[in-house]
Amino acid sequence: MTREETINLGAGPSTLPTPVLEEASRGILDYQGTGMGLIEVSHRSSTFQDMLKQTEKDLRTLADIPDEYAVIFVQGGGTEQFSATLLNMLAAYAARNPDKPTPAVDYVVSGSWSSKAVKEAKRLHSRVNIASDLREYINDGSRPVPRPSTWNLSPDAAMLYYCDNETIDGFEFPRGFITELPAEYRERVPIVADCSSNILSCRVNVRDHALVFFAAQKNIGPSGATVVVVRRDLVVDPDQLNAKYLAPIPTMLVYKNFVDNGSLYNTPPMFPIYVSSLLFRKLLDEGGLPQISKVNEEKATSLYGALLASPNLYRLNVAHPEFRSSMNVTFRVLGDNNEPSPEVEDKFIKFAAEHNIVQIKGHRSVGGIRMSIYNSTTLEQVLLVVSVINKFAAK
Amino acid sequence: MTREETINLGAGPSTLPTPVLEEASRGILDYQGTGMGLIEVSHRSSTFQDMLKQTEKDLRTLADIPDEYAVIFVQGGGTEQFSATLLNMLAAYAARNPDKPTPAVDYVVSGSWSSKAVKEAKRLHSRVNIASDLREYINDGSRPVPRPSTWNLSPDAAMLYYCDNETIDGFEFPRGFITELPAEYRERVPIVADCSSNILSCRVNVRDHALVFFAAQKNIGPSGATVVVVRRDLVVDPDQLNAKYLAPIPTMLVYKNFVDNGSLYNTPPMFPIYVSSLLFRKLLDEGGLPQISKVNEEKATSLYGALLASPNLYRLNVAHPEFRSSMNVTFRVLGDNNEPSPEVEDKFIKFAAEHNIVQIKGHRSVGGIRMSIYNSTTLEQVLLVVSVINKFAAK
Repeated sequence: MTREETINLGAGPSTLPTPVLEEASRGILDYQGTGMGLIEVSHRSSTFQDMLKQTEKDLRTLADIPDEYAVIFVQGGGTEQFSATLLNMLAAYAARNPDKPTPAVDYVVSGSWSSKAVKEAKRLHSRVNIASDLREYINDGSRPVPRPSTWNLSPDAAMLYYCDNETIDGFEFPRGFITELPAEYRERVPIVADCSSNILSCRVNVRDHALVFFAAQKNIGPSGATVVVVRRDLVVDPDQLNAKYLAPIPTMLVYKNFVDNGSLYNTPPMFPIYVSSLLFRKLLDEGGLPQISKVNEEKATSLYGALLASPNLYRLNVAHPEFRSSMNVTFRVLGDNNEPSPEVEDKFIKFAAEHNIVQIKGHRSVGGIRMSIYNSTTLEQVLLVVSVINKFAAK
Repeated sequence: MTREETINLGAGPSTLPTPVLEEASRGILDYQGTGMGLIEVSHRSSTFQDMLKQTEKDLRTLADIPDEYAVIFVQGGGTEQFSATLLNMLAAYAARNPDKPTPAVDYVVSGSWSSKAVKEAKRLHSRVNIASDLREYINDGSRPVPRPSTWNLSPDAAMLYYCDNETIDGFEFPRGFITELPAEYRERVPIVADCSSNILSCRVNVRDHALVFFAAQKNIGPSGATVVVVRRDLVVDPDQLNAKYLAPIPTMLVYKNFVDNGSLYNTPPMFPIYVSSLLFRKLLDEGGLPQISKVNEEKATSLYGALLASPNLYRLNVAHPEFRSSMNVTFRVLGDNNEPSPEVEDKFIKFAAEHNIVQIKGHRSVGGIRMSIYNSTTLEQVLLVVSVINKFAAK
């Protein structure tokens, strides 16, 4: 199976555009005629810093990030941000409210990743409040998903945290959903979003948030880099604060260290940043978010359409159309008894592999099939997948 | 300047062997005929896990790491380990000594990196003891460096921490130096070493330590991966402990999470691990540590020899021959008044650049010249550098 034939629908680390990888494969041997690969120069050299600055600039353009937000490149993936968002937002709360008691933190649970964030928050903080747990509504079409106006919000929260797209579950919040939170809550409480798997896929409105973070390995590059976009007034020095609920934060988790040093507090993960920069440039050349959104919408519509056309064979995991992920299409394949059948799913996976469609087994915690159609999956590839879905149904 | 001509003596991120980068540049487009780049497959796929297991196995062979030590690949560089070593060794102490009061931690300061480790330790823990500060002895040949038997050791230390090679200062401990610590101390107190810049250069004896860590970007690969080698009996679950001096440790800093999950607690930094694996294989093919040590010794002897041959022009930063780094050769270039001259140093840097020798400016905190001759710098390259050093002296 050649690269050209392969349709890699892995949920992440996921496929990247061939021209981007081709340029990276040259740049790790000789970057712009320096006689050195980009990963072999000092991260404090102008060679690397120029690239880093351009990467940030292009990301700001693509994702429409205003100046009042800092953009930093860190390590540790989403998991490190489960800790870092909490600890830094607690510090920011302490800076704003030096004399108040321990604040609550509000979490919205909508699937596996937000659950993990809650688990970590409970390890590190005493007042974790589940503002809403949407999981029970996801697969049940008979009950509407609770709107933000009905959530159980804490008056004194240090942040509200949610995961915008749940990769494992195939659940994604509709655009603007979070803005249905009461206006006075949104003014007071920083809204924090994990956008690891849908950043740059559609217009994530940074301005609706205090903080947005995303690990690279879905939509923007190889694993090893994570981007944090955080409103500058929330970037504080935790060592200058004295609240009882604040333990010292390990240096690498303190946003201020990265903001003050232009992401060069220590040696950054150079290769994933480099590949992201090449990808950002490609997306800009192709028309940026408006064009990407259009293509992604077509991809999702085609794929969901094909599955919905054979209701006796395919059943979507997310019952509510409004909450179906545009990135991770999760479904079960049904047996003769109209119930999910792991045997038929195995057959489906084999049939797909015969057509060069790979990495589609659902996450072990939910089973079934997951097709991830991030930015780097083309519409042409999705249409081929659709034809295979139809062919399997016809069999 | 082509890659073949360039002699890149950068202190890190540093040069990597061309054949390794060539194979990586193919592998990121199509890894072993899978039709996918290695960075595009699931980190839980057998494709990636087989590579990861082989990488660990090869590293164990190269560095002679016994089974009673776990080997994990983490993120965050040496800086994250400043926090993680301390927090995990405090937890291990609490597990061993459930009823004892807050233990001290002993640090040996020998340059910039160990100083940073101390700074972080003081942020996170109340009892930080400087067992010895060797910095004042480094540039002063008239005073011998204090031996471990004279250090100010804490009877109840949770660890003793030192940095085996100080990249910025050009200071390296002689082999076996740490074993001069009193035997009863070594039995009781875990010895922790930062070997980021000299691992695999010579025989770092893992068995003399409880924990050895190294960031990849000097001797083993691109930035973004860090390896921790830790004795298994010291890997504990901090959430099961209840000592007053233990704050909850953010998940990504808990060694047990990585040990229990074979470094796959979350998505690892795939590319730096991959390149390291290619480098390990190359080192093994070329004869492993015995051969590498021999070449490195020749490289260092040649380079120091050339500098010592012109004492009126070059002055080594480290006065004591026994403590001169085999990896980072730091020196000043002298002016007519026999004092270090930044002007003459600039001329030296320009002269070197004309001969394709680059990235040799000393760290801004110490000035002068730094030539890093890690594993991937060949003896032939060092001999060319020697000839340029001699030519400059002859001018």
